[in-house]
Parts: sequence; C-alpha cells; structure tokens
Amino acid sequence: MTKADKAADSGKADSTAKRQSRRPAADQSGRSLKRTEPATLDAGGSAHGGPAIKRRLSKPRKRDFPVSQARRYLEPGPIVLVSSHWQGHHNIMTMGWHCILEFAPSLFGCLISSGNHSFDMIRNSGECVINLPTTALTDIVCRIGNCSGSAVDKFAEFGLTASPAERVSAPIIEQCHAAFECKLHDDVLVEKYNYFIFEIVKAHVAARPAHPETLHYTGDGVFMVAGKVISRRSLFTKVL
Amino acid sequence: MTKADKAADSGKADSTAKRQSRRPAADQSGRSLKRTEPATLDAGGSAHGGPAIKRRLSKPRKRDFPVSQARRYLEPGPIVLVSSHWQGHHNIMTMGWHCILEFAPSLFGCLISSGNHSFDMIRNSGECVINLPTTALTDIVCRIGNCSGSAVDKFAEFGLTASPAERVSAPIIEQCHAAFECKLHDDVLVEKYNYFIFEIVKAHVAARPAHPETLHYTGDGVFMVAGKVISRRSLFTKVL
Repeated sequence: MTKADKAADSGKADSTAKRQSRRPAADQSGRSLKRTEPATLDAGGSAHGGPAIKRRLSKPRKRDFPVSQARRYLEPGPIVLVSSHWQGHHNIMTMGWHCILEFAPSLFGCLISSGNHSFDMIRNSGECVINLPTTALTDIVCRIGNCSGSAVDKFAEFGLTASPAERVSAPIIEQCHAAFECKLHDDVLVEKYNYFIFEIVKAHVAARPAHPETLHYTGDGVFMVAGKVISRRSLFTKVL
Repeated sequence: MTKADKAADSGKADSTAKRQSRRPAADQSGRSLKRTEPATLDAGGSAHGGPAIKRRLSKPRKRDFPVSQARRYLEPGPIVLVSSHWQGHHNIMTMGWHCILEFAPSLFGCLISSGNHSFDMIRNSGECVINLPTTALTDIVCRIGNCSGSAVDKFAEFGLTASPAERVSAPIIEQCHAAFECKLHDDVLVEKYNYFIFEIVKAHVAARPAHPETLHYTGDGVFMVAGKVISRRSLFTKVL
C-alpha cells in the first residue's frame, strides 16, 4: 500500500504502520509565514490524473468566529482538509474521521494515520489547521487525498493559497469556507490509535452562505452532499 | 441545566457533571429480550411537546453487513440513536459526537455525557447499539433528545419497536435504516472526556435505499440533510 493509497482513505488508522510517541517542542519558525500564492491557478498537467484545474477558485472572506461554536461546522461530519507546517514546509491531507469532544475548551478529536506524510509534521509541531472545503473543491479534495506531501507541494499543485494563521504555524487554506486553528491538547491515544485530541484556539468562518454545501465521505470514492437544511427549533426545550 | 437540556445537545461533554470510572461486569440478563411492540403507534398526547406522531413508521428490513465497512454509514457524520439496556430497562439517546477509528477491528469512538440517563446504563453494561435514523424520523430524533429515559419509556412514547440484537443486550430500533451492535473496547478516556471506544461486533443494514437521507446536526435546532451523492471514483488511485 502506497502513501497515496493511505492518504486516499481520508485519515484511516493503519494498525501495522509505525507509531511514534515522542513529541518534540513545537517549531515556531513558521510563525512569520508569508502568504504563499501558487505560481499558477491552472494546475493542469498534474501527474496525479484527471483534468486540469483551470478555474479560479474563490477565497471566501472569513471573520472571527467563537471557538466554542466550532461544532456548528464540524459536528455534521464533513470531509476536512488538514494543513500543517514543519521545518519550512507546508502540507495538506484530507480527513474524514473526526469528532467534536467539548465546547469549552473547544476540543476536537481526529484520527491521522501514521502512514500519512502529515502525521510526523503534526506530531512534531503539535499544531494544525482544520479547513472546511465546500463542494466547489470536490475534485481538489479527492486529489489531495490521493497524493503524498513527501512528493508534492500540494498548495502549488492544486492552486491553493496558504495564508498565515494567528495562533499556529500551520497555514490557513484561503479557498476553504472556514478554518479552525488547533493545538495538541492530549496525545494519550496517539500511539495506540493515531488519535489526536486538539484544542481549537482560533476560528475563522465566512459569513455567507450560512449553510455551505459540504462533502461527507462514504468510502469507495463516493461522497454524500449536505446542503439542504431542516430546522426543528420548536422541538428543543433548550436549543444547544 | 436539566437532563433534557443535556440530552438535547446530542451527546456533549459536561465537564462539571459526575464522572464514573468503575465498570461492573456486563449484565447479560437482557439477552433473552423479546421484541417490544409499542402499545400504540399514535404517541399523541405526549408531555414532550409538538404534534402527535400519528403515522405508522416503516421498519426497513435489514441484512447482515460487514462490520469492517461500518464507515460507509457512520463516517458521513449522521445523527444516530444510541439504544441501551440495563437491569430490565431499555433507553435511547440522540448522539452527534462520534467518529470511526479503525476498519478491523471495527472501532467507533463517541462521546456520551455523564449527564445523560444512558451514560450509566452503557457504562454498566459495556454495550449499546448505534442505530441510524433517516429524515423520516426527524421529529422523533428531536423528541428523543429532549426528554430523559429516567422519566420516559422512549420506545413506547415514540412508537418505536425494540427487537433483540444478536451480540449485545441493547435492542435494535426496527424503524432505523441500520443498526451497529457495539461492545466497549477501551474505556481509557471515559472518566476524563466521557469518550467511549466501542468495537462494532455485528452490523445490520437495509439494502434500499443505497444512500438514505440522513440528519447532520449543527446545533441551534438545525440539521443539514445529506442525500445527494457525488461519485469521484476516477480520482482515487485505490478506492477505499
């Protein structure tokens, strides 16, 4: 199984892969990170298959958002893009195995396979950004999950823009609808399950649309799309 | 904050609530559980608000399903109904904070607040069933999450049918599209985070529809609906 194969699985555990329990001090060298524009927005000619990505992707303007309300975007279970930074390099991986754990502190648990190139970067830095893509990024989400950061600069390859986060060295992906800056909170399950518990320390969300279409992975190359909204506030004795 | 308020939050952690770390031996007394038909399918006159549930709900015929493929239904992040059994009583809670952790063994992590009546039942029995409701059950999902099993027999109250599971004492909710029988696999995070790691030991899924409409909770009484499907198999180097 190749790294790309593993990455294609959006964050699955690999019980046979190496486990790494040490956690060096976080690298702060990336805090002076400058915005990185891709050389071209046409990522055509990719070695990773499929048609070229020719259209200019929008960059939703994001505002500060309360970290205690991150569940608004993450509890529905969307595929997310995890960006990381370590020793001068960025990376992105696609992830589907994650879960809100608490409002305050704003805790978020997720599984990052040790077979992914991002694993060591996040293990070493203790930081990442959870970026929320919409269906506008469907093809890019798939391609990111089917190549390895060990061989490809995914920002350049897929025409994505890295902008500096406020509290972590990992970059924000500007083309995503929301971005949640995370610091490692508890690594007790990292060695056994590759399961990280992060605290969301800063959140950025685009104001519109209120309910963007998001991707929800089922395996087998198939996503379900959530976009339609049902309100049942009247049935809740106390809305939370 | 009342128990109903807590339940309304579909499984949130309550950092101030009592924690319970002991785990008595599982109660096997429920293995002889008989199917429990509700006294009436009209649950009108409920003390829990909203209009009566008058229509007969379908009971999708479920077939055995490989436990290693449970992610097909759970990775997209739907609201689920967690059924439990302890000392002769059933209960149901609504839950939104969960995540697949591994294919084989089929591991599933989820947060069950110690403020929920289900917490002690599941902590004591070490078992539950994760049932997947579709949008046909939207109102019932909300009502289940807004009352407490300490005061209400939710199967009777909401016109649901409990049928025996094969490997656990907790019942299957017949009106749900799928049911995943779970045994506690690791309780290391139960005391600190109310986070349970279960092994899915048996799965039952209705063959049709292939992609049922599911509910994805955002808080504030609002659900997103996933039903539309996008396939991108051609972009996956190895489909997983």
